[in-house]
Amino acid sequence: MKYDLIIIGGGPAGITGGIYAARKKLNTLLLTSDFVGQTGKALHIENWPGIKNISGSELINNFAEHLRQFEIEIKEEEAVKVEKLAQSGFQVTTKNSNVFEAEAVLVASGRSPRLLNVIGEEDYVGRGVSYCPICDAAFFKNKRVIVVGGGNSGFGAAMELIKYAAKVFVFEFSSLVRADEVIQEQAKASGKIEVFLNVRLQEIKGNNKVESVVYNDTAAKREYGLPVDGVFVEIGSVPAANIVKGLVEFNEAGEIKTDPRTGQTSTPGIFAAGDITDVKYKQVIIASGQGAQAALAAYEYIEKMKNAK
Amino acid sequence: MKYDLIIIGGGPAGITGGIYAARKKLNTLLLTSDFVGQTGKALHIENWPGIKNISGSELINNFAEHLRQFEIEIKEEEAVKVEKLAQSGFQVTTKNSNVFEAEAVLVASGRSPRLLNVIGEEDYVGRGVSYCPICDAAFFKNKRVIVVGGGNSGFGAAMELIKYAAKVFVFEFSSLVRADEVIQEQAKASGKIEVFLNVRLQEIKGNNKVESVVYNDTAAKREYGLPVDGVFVEIGSVPAANIVKGLVEFNEAGEIKTDPRTGQTSTPGIFAAGDITDVKYKQVIIASGQGAQAALAAYEYIEKMKNAK
Repeated sequence: MKYDLIIIGGGPAGITGGIYAARKKLNTLLLTSDFVGQTGKALHIENWPGIKNISGSELINNFAEHLRQFEIEIKEEEAVKVEKLAQSGFQVTTKNSNVFEAEAVLVASGRSPRLLNVIGEEDYVGRGVSYCPICDAAFFKNKRVIVVGGGNSGFGAAMELIKYAAKVFVFEFSSLVRADEVIQEQAKASGKIEVFLNVRLQEIKGNNKVESVVYNDTAAKREYGLPVDGVFVEIGSVPAANIVKGLVEFNEAGEIKTDPRTGQTSTPGIFAAGDITDVKYKQVIIASGQGAQAALAAYEYIEKMKNAK
Repeated sequence: MKYDLIIIGGGPAGITGGIYAARKKLNTLLLTSDFVGQTGKALHIENWPGIKNISGSELINNFAEHLRQFEIEIKEEEAVKVEKLAQSGFQVTTKNSNVFEAEAVLVASGRSPRLLNVIGEEDYVGRGVSYCPICDAAFFKNKRVIVVGGGNSGFGAAMELIKYAAKVFVFEFSSLVRADEVIQEQAKASGKIEVFLNVRLQEIKGNNKVESVVYNDTAAKREYGLPVDGVFVEIGSVPAANIVKGLVEFNEAGEIKTDPRTGQTSTPGIFAAGDITDVKYKQVIIASGQGAQAALAAYEYIEKMKNAK
């Protein structure tokens, strides 16, 4: 069976796209590994119009519940590759090797955490290495953890972690911290957060789970070891666009190039929306609007293709 | 006093822009004649992500209440003209001749109902002529009214009106009705709605309030009179962009030309968002996202202008 549209991603862009596609009666499949993503990991969202304060997970759950009201197929599977079919349309392969076909694809898989790319990082994911303080903080009760990254998200992670952890070390590569003054002061006042400047994490070591790290003090040009139970990585994000590598054009930041009025990519039939695209500002409300646009444009494309047959 | 930013419009784009501007600590004034607009007049909204069904007025009230949480000045005054100042910045004049100045302006005044442009229309606005069935239906209890326009909005208006009115005539200029089958069937089933095809309204007559109309049957090429108490106009909308006429570029549809990633118009410092712009799809969620974008772009512009001084 060939769907009209496959939507990849369960964040604000993908879900809003799904709502619009379903209302247009497109035969739609939405693929997402989960309904969490960047939004689901946000502690507080205060700029979603009409809601003064909501957790990211509650907001995305509201979205997903709304989507489920409509006639749309949802599979909690991770898409890994999109390919062009010999005839018109595309096929999407998932991590469990399922293959689905559709006339058009809307890519809305957002952004993934940027990796440290150090020895041990990959080995200890889920065993001390984490990219989601909100998800994992509670596993570190009375433990010692490192947060890599001295920006707002790094300090936000540290503040979240000290609800459980005994001690948090914030590792900042440069000689000064970029987080807002107010959150730096909160961190200092907690008495549980220590900031290390000019440090570069070299290696994560352990025995089944994280036990220590090796880091380089770039000012003193010396290497040190530090016993810790966890490493939280907060050094930004990258577009999760590997699934369409070679199929559509990217900008220098690795984001999918789109027509900002329609989400059309360089390949007819492939649309993109949200933080995976070259949209200038990355915000939940902007990604949602883009999802709606792209679904409406995909609807027009699919109608045109059907009429041409 | 000169504001950083004046936002014109109290719909989804203007309010979301206001939330983002206030969170960026811009000294902001929002001017709107009311918090109603096109959204506030919608009976049901089912495609605002996270809310399964809400009336337009409730949704826009939620938005406005959210906005009022922030530090932002709101004046319920209608802006009528935006002009460039001799130095940098702009002045905005309101209907009651107040004048406000700002470094940048975000135009988000949406669209106004398209007028019939027939004799009597202007004279009887508020005295039988209406562009808002939801606002005014209750004034026509047991009365006879005409809805001009046989599209979905015309039939929607007719269905709203028969909650009160004894009889509704739907006037359609062409030889067939464009409304969806399902709503046409509902109208027929009501027994209270009569559709006139090939008719052109010529004149609205009355004595202090509407008492009758004159219309032309374009198929029979004959003129008729019809005694009615009200005329509801549902023939589409036009961008409410007169306030910046001569100041920014428009497209052929009279919409403000914008950079779709920032809302920047052809005049630096003037931004636009929502249905007043050349955005391809007119939707609440898309207008909201555009309002956020434009406020963030206006923030960058204002910072740049401040630093240049």
